[in-house]
Amino acid sequence: MITILKGRSKEVVIDTEGPVVIIGESINPTRRKKLVSTLQEHNFDFVLELAKNQIDEGADVLDVNVGFPGVDDVKLLPETVKVLQDNFDVPLCLDSPNPAAIEAALRAAEGKCLINSVNGEERSLQSLLPIAREFGAAIIGLCMDDDGITHDPDKRLSIAEKIIERAVREGIKAEDVIIDPLAMAVSADPRACIVTLETIRLVHQELGHNITQGASNISFGLPDRESLNAAYMAMSIFNGLTCPIANPEKITSIVRAADLVLGRDDYAVRFVDYFQRRQ
Amino acid sequence: MITILKGRSKEVVIDTEGPVVIIGESINPTRRKKLVSTLQEHNFDFVLELAKNQIDEGADVLDVNVGFPGVDDVKLLPETVKVLQDNFDVPLCLDSPNPAAIEAALRAAEGKCLINSVNGEERSLQSLLPIAREFGAAIIGLCMDDDGITHDPDKRLSIAEKIIERAVREGIKAEDVIIDPLAMAVSADPRACIVTLETIRLVHQELGHNITQGASNISFGLPDRESLNAAYMAMSIFNGLTCPIANPEKITSIVRAADLVLGRDDYAVRFVDYFQRRQ
Repeated sequence: MITILKGRSKEVVIDTEGPVVIIGESINPTRRKKLVSTLQEHNFDFVLELAKNQIDEGADVLDVNVGFPGVDDVKLLPETVKVLQDNFDVPLCLDSPNPAAIEAALRAAEGKCLINSVNGEERSLQSLLPIAREFGAAIIGLCMDDDGITHDPDKRLSIAEKIIERAVREGIKAEDVIIDPLAMAVSADPRACIVTLETIRLVHQELGHNITQGASNISFGLPDRESLNAAYMAMSIFNGLTCPIANPEKITSIVRAADLVLGRDDYAVRFVDYFQRRQ
Repeated sequence: MITILKGRSKEVVIDTEGPVVIIGESINPTRRKKLVSTLQEHNFDFVLELAKNQIDEGADVLDVNVGFPGVDDVKLLPETVKVLQDNFDVPLCLDSPNPAAIEAALRAAEGKCLINSVNGEERSLQSLLPIAREFGAAIIGLCMDDDGITHDPDKRLSIAEKIIERAVREGIKAEDVIIDPLAMAVSADPRACIVTLETIRLVHQELGHNITQGASNISFGLPDRESLNAAYMAMSIFNGLTCPIANPEKITSIVRAADLVLGRDDYAVRFVDYFQRRQ
């Protein structure tokens, strides 16, 4: 199955058989005070710097989150989208819990964006699916619903199925629903990663949809986060993860390595190219 | 299933459910001129240094290979074993293509060693299984036979089964056969790693034996070998690899990370301990 996203003109193809597409996570105020302070002044230089660095490091799509306390992201998210699209041609992943901000950003955006995220809660489905359909956006479907977060991979799979069904009924193409199996911190729950890995395997095998996740969370609160994220990323890709949301500066080498190991990089072209550009 | 190896007094338990046991690969003359020159002078200082470094870095077992052109390893292998056991209490993995050297080393060794390796060739089975039984050693069973190396995971599984059957018939305990699925360079064959990963999965699920591999080979001829080895190691562990032969200085962090991700390291004790000792 193939999901296509678009920037102003550039298309990015996400294929369930790989290779992996990296969605850069860094335009996000969490632990980035400088992003908050510059955005408060409507100064987009740092946003553009983060965008450039991520693209240089291998990001194919950029996640855009400008949520912080006191912000009016119904205004700021579309403004940021415009500035980014004026400067770069990559597709964007619009990241906000506020449907009004998503809608305003979609109105401002060119191409075909990804909405981050819809989940299985009625409120989420009802508010976001019509917007996605109206603007022809793809969506990330997060495996949680009105009952909260389950630790049962089969139940997460059922939530994924429900989101896909509801989206298709609303007129969204099935392939435009990318599933997020919900990665959580292994420091809080020793079984957190196993549950998510099994969910990835099930979604890949049973539904055959593209799969994303914010994979940096799993190492929260632990040292040597790079090794943990790398081990988890490799296992996730093996199981069917196709478009992680991650920091390309830290994750691209292991992603390219995983693609090569899985026979998706003939003559190691992309792997060697990434290595050489870093020299 | 559990395989137990012994040093002079120390037991190392290899459990098919993990955590992963690291067999240090560094006592091996390949690309180590200093090891050849010191051994030629019967100077074991460098061997001991390699042993200490590997144990400090997380090796639970040490592979011992002293083969180089012109060497009499029927003499040198047992000598090296003695020197190592006089100084360290870890179990040893005796690595030689020469059955006479293996036998001489087993005669010299205390505890319970691992033989690296028996394969499915008649000559190998006939020469090494009786020695393993006589000295109560465990064996590594390499998935190749008189027909050479197959690229079919099901056929590699059959070879593993044959080695186990023959070993049991010879009086060796089934759990003392550790299977090596045969990792090969992905630069030479884009499907090399996929075939081996699938073999690991099959051996783990169908036979339930412990699994080893010399996992550094897969990145031969490529840059950024650490990323490749890390991605492949994480996927291999996910599929059932339990006792890789590798360089602990380079691989222990990803191995400890993989165990933590797979729920085999409660409260992240081993992961954090390894991190702190490296500081």
